[in-house]
Amino acid sequence: MKIQLAKNYGFCFGVKRAIKIAENSKDGATFGELIHNSEEIKRLKDDFNVKTLKTIDEMKNEKKVIIRTHGITKNDLEILKTENKNIIDATCPFVTKPQNIVEKMSKDGYDIVIFGDFNHPEVKGVMSYASGNVFVVLEPKELDGVKIRNKVAVVSQTTKKIEEFAKIVSYLMTRTKEVRVFNTICNATLENQEAVRELALKADVMVIIGGKNSSNTKQLFLISKQVCKDSYLIENDSEVKKEWFDGKKFCGISAGASTPGWIIQKVVNKIKELS
Amino acid sequence: MKIQLAKNYGFCFGVKRAIKIAENSKDGATFGELIHNSEEIKRLKDDFNVKTLKTIDEMKNEKKVIIRTHGITKNDLEILKTENKNIIDATCPFVTKPQNIVEKMSKDGYDIVIFGDFNHPEVKGVMSYASGNVFVVLEPKELDGVKIRNKVAVVSQTTKKIEEFAKIVSYLMTRTKEVRVFNTICNATLENQEAVRELALKADVMVIIGGKNSSNTKQLFLISKQVCKDSYLIENDSEVKKEWFDGKKFCGISAGASTPGWIIQKVVNKIKELS
Repeated sequence: MKIQLAKNYGFCFGVKRAIKIAENSKDGATFGELIHNSEEIKRLKDDFNVKTLKTIDEMKNEKKVIIRTHGITKNDLEILKTENKNIIDATCPFVTKPQNIVEKMSKDGYDIVIFGDFNHPEVKGVMSYASGNVFVVLEPKELDGVKIRNKVAVVSQTTKKIEEFAKIVSYLMTRTKEVRVFNTICNATLENQEAVRELALKADVMVIIGGKNSSNTKQLFLISKQVCKDSYLIENDSEVKKEWFDGKKFCGISAGASTPGWIIQKVVNKIKELS
Repeated sequence: MKIQLAKNYGFCFGVKRAIKIAENSKDGATFGELIHNSEEIKRLKDDFNVKTLKTIDEMKNEKKVIIRTHGITKNDLEILKTENKNIIDATCPFVTKPQNIVEKMSKDGYDIVIFGDFNHPEVKGVMSYASGNVFVVLEPKELDGVKIRNKVAVVSQTTKKIEEFAKIVSYLMTRTKEVRVFNTICNATLENQEAVRELALKADVMVIIGGKNSSNTKQLFLISKQVCKDSYLIENDSEVKKEWFDGKKFCGISAGASTPGWIIQKVVNKIKELS
């Protein structure tokens, strides 16, 4: 069976940068998971003693604080700043951008619409920069009946699908006079999405590797599944099943932006072994 | 046969206003057609001696100049202004708006995209207010290969279909970082479009009345045709044909924003007579 990796996949610029920052911040603590990959987080703990803490209270005794790639809320950042800590910012610059846009547009009197998952840490961070109305939605219908002002600024979670983002914008265009659209979907996301679509068209089985809580990995899986019905989403090689490859000729592989190369390599080896 | 007019049709606010202005400007001259309806223009000439002139040269000897509903170019307006004339502005306020938006956005460094017909007087006027790059398109593919900056402002000709406008915006979102969308399609247009769709769903024959060069009438006809295949576009009662109504039970009628009530009434009478 032929095995082929997508033209673009895996670690993006922001994740690579964050891991480098963490590796250079021995004994530090991240507030929330640095990236959405538990195995890589374990490696940082084992090799560099970088801890992952979950609440702002737990951070109290930490001197060296690393801000995760997805960013944190404006309020949490201010609390950390008042505590005289060494703050090391590993927020992806592509996430800082929507934070800044939301802050500025909100001050300029725009209502804010964020296309994203309300519970995703990136979205929680971005929305915290709004000083006026802010709405987080995944579908246009969630805006039905919502009172929106005549000026709306729209941003997207960095890891979403552009087609779905466009649907929100189309809907808003009919509801309000000015819609200021900032395409904050990051290029790595767009490239990985394009590459997985291209590969899935040729493959008869697809394996997508990434954290179960990773938004961008989920999007890759959904795109793959649309085109190639035998698509599987896994976190690591232990989940690979022999029967997936019975009678198959071409296996395509892609991985989310938080998936380290060594995990991908182990999956490839396992597939070779089983097929 | 049942005959029913659409819930919204015919003269819009801007046209009513322009006709009133023209009626109050006896012996004046309009630069280009005041509205896109030759019969109404003839009435204004016959009853109020309001002439329709075609070039800026022809305007030279006119003292009282009426600016048409669709507006004129910035340059033509400046020429008229230097000639010490009495300028009476009948530009529809909904057309003045995209003119102002394009002027401001262009000054603020945005590339301008106008969704509209390059040869329509309204579009010629609106685009003349751009001081930088300006692109007029009807379909996204016309933007293929065009070099666009990172900031784009988009307006629409006031009489276009919102769904097609949204396609242009969706395309631009994938090509550039900020798309500032101003929904300049006028409410009368949107309401007439909605009403003709609703009526065409119930009718088995549709008659749309309006000037052959009227953009909004054309849109009404296209929407009607999509839903009811027996749709006809006419300028006046002389074009109505008996055979259109053979075996029909329900005739729907709509008219463009420049179509006077007396023309619509004559068409209705003719249909009653023939059916």
